[in-house]
Amino acid sequence: MNTDQNKLPCSYFKDTKPLLLENGTSIDELTVAYESYGKLNKNKSNAIVICHALSGDQFLASKNPLTNKDGWWNRMVGSGKPIDTDKYFVICANVLGGCLGSTGPTSINPKTGEEYGLDFPVITISDMVNAQMRLIQHLEIDKILSVIGGSMGGMQVLEWAASYPKNIHSAIPIATSSRHTAQNIAFHELGRQAIMADPDWNGGNYLKLATNPTKGLSIARMTAHVTYLSETSLTKKFGRRLQDKEEISFGFDADFQIESYLRHQGLTFVDRFDANSYLYITRAMDYFDLEKTHKKGLTEIFEKTNIKFLIASFTGDWLYPPSENLMIVRALSAGGADVSFVNIESDKGHDAFLLEEPEFDDAMRGFINSVSIEAKI
Amino acid sequence: MNTDQNKLPCSYFKDTKPLLLENGTSIDELTVAYESYGKLNKNKSNAIVICHALSGDQFLASKNPLTNKDGWWNRMVGSGKPIDTDKYFVICANVLGGCLGSTGPTSINPKTGEEYGLDFPVITISDMVNAQMRLIQHLEIDKILSVIGGSMGGMQVLEWAASYPKNIHSAIPIATSSRHTAQNIAFHELGRQAIMADPDWNGGNYLKLATNPTKGLSIARMTAHVTYLSETSLTKKFGRRLQDKEEISFGFDADFQIESYLRHQGLTFVDRFDANSYLYITRAMDYFDLEKTHKKGLTEIFEKTNIKFLIASFTGDWLYPPSENLMIVRALSAGGADVSFVNIESDKGHDAFLLEEPEFDDAMRGFINSVSIEAKI
Repeated sequence: MNTDQNKLPCSYFKDTKPLLLENGTSIDELTVAYESYGKLNKNKSNAIVICHALSGDQFLASKNPLTNKDGWWNRMVGSGKPIDTDKYFVICANVLGGCLGSTGPTSINPKTGEEYGLDFPVITISDMVNAQMRLIQHLEIDKILSVIGGSMGGMQVLEWAASYPKNIHSAIPIATSSRHTAQNIAFHELGRQAIMADPDWNGGNYLKLATNPTKGLSIARMTAHVTYLSETSLTKKFGRRLQDKEEISFGFDADFQIESYLRHQGLTFVDRFDANSYLYITRAMDYFDLEKTHKKGLTEIFEKTNIKFLIASFTGDWLYPPSENLMIVRALSAGGADVSFVNIESDKGHDAFLLEEPEFDDAMRGFINSVSIEAKI
Repeated sequence: MNTDQNKLPCSYFKDTKPLLLENGTSIDELTVAYESYGKLNKNKSNAIVICHALSGDQFLASKNPLTNKDGWWNRMVGSGKPIDTDKYFVICANVLGGCLGSTGPTSINPKTGEEYGLDFPVITISDMVNAQMRLIQHLEIDKILSVIGGSMGGMQVLEWAASYPKNIHSAIPIATSSRHTAQNIAFHELGRQAIMADPDWNGGNYLKLATNPTKGLSIARMTAHVTYLSETSLTKKFGRRLQDKEEISFGFDADFQIESYLRHQGLTFVDRFDANSYLYITRAMDYFDLEKTHKKGLTEIFEKTNIKFLIASFTGDWLYPPSENLMIVRALSAGGADVSFVNIESDKGHDAFLLEEPEFDDAMRGFINSVSIEAKI
């Protein structure tokens, strides 16, 4: 990507109080770039925090200034939508380590006056949540009505619930896991290796050297993208159909629609994402292990919690399958938590939480309504 | 790889009669490198042809001269083993397009006197089988007792049965499919893109330029390897265990055992495989579509066949899952073929056919015994 992300049209919160990180170092000048939708009510009780996924951003319900496309959760968030901006004040921050305005490897390192690059500290999901908490404190919101997120967003939701139980009424982790499995780590490692193998990555110094590891990042994105779709959805969407030709070409061009689609996904991604950010964010996900961070079992972490949970999974999701989500449900139930669980019948794969799934929308709307009544907003 | 594959210790069959290819061109000087085990009996009725998979080779039951490791199916083939070399004459040929002695992109193009590289024609599974048939004719074997293979080997078995029904008694396609799905193609495309993105690939001309796209090939291998293992086997084998350390390093080195394992798989592969061969062979697999090649439905292709089939799949195989294999079983049954099917309970993923699976061994031994009695060898 070649956009100066500090000029993206959104809100910025800057904090000069150092943010202590899990690796023992700190971020001395923290910037959190965020978008908000709706209005914060008088008693500040209607705030909903949405945490984005690996390749997501703060532009969830407004036009993305880099792609000029609708926000990634436009379907879910807006006036009259399941997360209704007529009623709620919705906040979404670019994650720490990201490349759309929040402090990350493309930011200027105050110690050197140059971009961090690989000098950026390796951050964790917990660090991301702590950065968001700074924003919430700045906005003087004592209790968030609901923290919501899918995939890596769901990991942040779990971390929010584990670290700040008194600051949230309810939590909706979607299509996620309480720790990354070996298979999850493996797919991320493929992406990282592809980026680091690109000579234009230049040991992470590409910004200073004015190169850009677009090929590596593109392959990383293609790899991830395959894991977001189910075999059934790939078959329905593409099957063995050819791209703009009647017969196979007996060559290495994109003969099949699926090849053409993946190449397109890779190529467009590099215009809106930074390769080092991709390394840092995937690493944070791989390191995510709620039990290890909190040094106790999942049930113990959430024992006697007052947070109301809705957990949602999708039958066709093989990246964070229902079984992973159910493990969280069981641990919460065992600890006496108030937990609802919906396992949505869908063949759309992991991406289902971003797509048209009416049953999921209904569950979201119903749950958020019920907690808003309870919280008397 | 940097080994002169024409010097590998195995048998070579050279044919100067051009081999017509599916793309309309031909190979004018065909070499088939092969290994054989056991003895061909007097009436040449005890021959078993084994077809290898994408990264396999002819050294299935003897020490591999490149790796010095045991053959890839040492467990299955040998004296007293399920495919018993005391009774059967077992032949395994390196596939056309391969890099272990059979004609492929590393071979000398007789028209130019230089390595083919990308001038090698794009070949198909059917071309591979036709090259093997030349070897079988050369050995004057009229009827093969059994053609056996897993994964891409299974595709060749299906092609053998479809193209040369009179030349084979029985066929054992294992963990395979009658056509590559969109997901299968997608994973191969990732590998090809990784190879072609490596500047040392040099548009396929790396042999002439004395470079070697080891990074790209290594990533391709890592990608494929993830698809060969099940989520369960990865969890059992590696889980979130760290590699030679007590704590995560907050860096991009291989912290997790799964990362270290994948990197090792990638690094060692480049010593025994050629990057262009990888492109050609994956392409042949992607192009594989038995119905399209034979211009009729699967049931019609095998209608009234006299071939006895054993089809084997593995419950933990998500690359060529039981459902894909069952589709072949159903088509064969509908056409009145004599077909046995075993779906082996296993959590080892696609690789299960190469690993210790006693129930699978028993099925193989039993089926081959029964066809050898029928064939009166």
